[in-house]
Amino acid sequence: MLGIGDDCAILEPTPGAKLLVTTDMLMDGRHFRLDEDGAEAVGYKAMGVNVSDIAAMAGVPLAAVVSVSLPRVGAAEIARGLHAGLRRMADRFGVDLVGGDTNAWDGPLVVNVTVLGEATSRGAVLRSGARPGDVVCVTGPLGGSLFRGRHLRPEPRVKEALALHEAIPIRAMIDISDGLSSDLGHILEESGGLGAVLDLDRLPIHSDARDLAEEDGTPAYLHALNDGEDFELCVAIDRDDAILLRNLTGLHRIHPVGEIVSEPGLRLRRNDGSMEPILPAGFDHLRGVEA
Amino acid sequence: MLGIGDDCAILEPTPGAKLLVTTDMLMDGRHFRLDEDGAEAVGYKAMGVNVSDIAAMAGVPLAAVVSVSLPRVGAAEIARGLHAGLRRMADRFGVDLVGGDTNAWDGPLVVNVTVLGEATSRGAVLRSGARPGDVVCVTGPLGGSLFRGRHLRPEPRVKEALALHEAIPIRAMIDISDGLSSDLGHILEESGGLGAVLDLDRLPIHSDARDLAEEDGTPAYLHALNDGEDFELCVAIDRDDAILLRNLTGLHRIHPVGEIVSEPGLRLRRNDGSMEPILPAGFDHLRGVEA
Repeated sequence: MLGIGDDCAILEPTPGAKLLVTTDMLMDGRHFRLDEDGAEAVGYKAMGVNVSDIAAMAGVPLAAVVSVSLPRVGAAEIARGLHAGLRRMADRFGVDLVGGDTNAWDGPLVVNVTVLGEATSRGAVLRSGARPGDVVCVTGPLGGSLFRGRHLRPEPRVKEALALHEAIPIRAMIDISDGLSSDLGHILEESGGLGAVLDLDRLPIHSDARDLAEEDGTPAYLHALNDGEDFELCVAIDRDDAILLRNLTGLHRIHPVGEIVSEPGLRLRRNDGSMEPILPAGFDHLRGVEA
Repeated sequence: MLGIGDDCAILEPTPGAKLLVTTDMLMDGRHFRLDEDGAEAVGYKAMGVNVSDIAAMAGVPLAAVVSVSLPRVGAAEIARGLHAGLRRMADRFGVDLVGGDTNAWDGPLVVNVTVLGEATSRGAVLRSGARPGDVVCVTGPLGGSLFRGRHLRPEPRVKEALALHEAIPIRAMIDISDGLSSDLGHILEESGGLGAVLDLDRLPIHSDARDLAEEDGTPAYLHALNDGEDFELCVAIDRDDAILLRNLTGLHRIHPVGEIVSEPGLRLRRNDGSMEPILPAGFDHLRGVEA
């Protein structure tokens, strides 16, 4: 039904069954540092980033298969740690670990997780449904996830997405893995080449971003816009629904940060009304590639 | 429904829908040599070994997701080659490439494929259903798959498995990826600790195994028993059904090679009736691992 280009693929193996599939590969030195973080944290993250992709479709995660390439030295202990971390995250979300492929080699640790889930009767939420006038919201403060290792402890917003999707129609959704500027950029692109204006003073900035800013001199709001691996959700909802949401209790707090506009491009609006373009500067999976 | 320990996991996301899931990770230097084999061959093999796992359950492959870690240098060209190979195999079996995850790093090429399939109305065939007295058959000649690169060109026996499963009940099945001795060993173990006697003169030996034997001095029949990556199927069927099969035309030729016995262990019977134990010596995924 839906192939490459969203957080998950959607399959309909039998009529009425909407199956979600997502896969992510994590490599030592790229998504984690085995010697510093430990195998348990790696397993926890590897499962979490995939569950987060199911959340981004407002789906329910069901089952996972895991492939690993273990460094030969210490393979058994690494495998035990990985498994413990994978299980700990999987158990939190009722995900069954149903199979896998275990290898050893002379290279660094590589972990691949594929998670299957299902859409609810309200359907899966795609990246492509945003419309001009929609309110852009995020589910939590952003930026600096690398600073204190928060990127290793994703909090997949499965329940939050399901509750929100139950309360109002979500037009478009994505999880923030590459950075808000990049990921909102995907929504804008997939929704037909739209733009968005974000309000600087409404951007929820994580304390990690502020602390990192003090250390590296990059303004905290740029960390909030461009750092990846927050694993919060970015959603586009109708303006009227956004007003409705304010009066609903019991929902996870969501932060309106701006609006979708028809003019392409991403811009930041300051308190005084002045605008500046935001250049997507989030995580590029192929950064440093030489042709 | 069925977790770790068969060729695929079986899920039932909605009542009546039997979904098969399998995943395999292939690493440069371990399952292929990128510089010698080329990226296209790697993609073709990576998809093929997964489709073969679906065949081993008598399932129909449907869709695949692919994750890759590309070496930075030449990443774009490698990605194109991989994709062409993945697509060529996928197209042969009607598999949709529905999603994936592309990364670049300083390490060697790693490719992970997850294939989803579905069981037919006759159900999925497990490894665990063999009984003493069953006939053990294989779908083709074995051994020496590394000698001329045949391991790069798997012929997943999807149609053969479906036709056989339609004709007679298959008690147990596995695809020969680690070597007949190891893979039949899995059937014996999963079927409750049974044994098998294989007849030396009925073992179909691949010409690659004979040629390799001349070169390395290891008898050809040991290559047929222990070499991996033939991707033929090993099946256990009722003796009466085996007789029935002889009179059925239009089926792929299957080779009876021995029988299941209640005494544990794998033995080879020579022409003169003498027996010798077969020690599983097939591919060990964790060979060389240091604790």
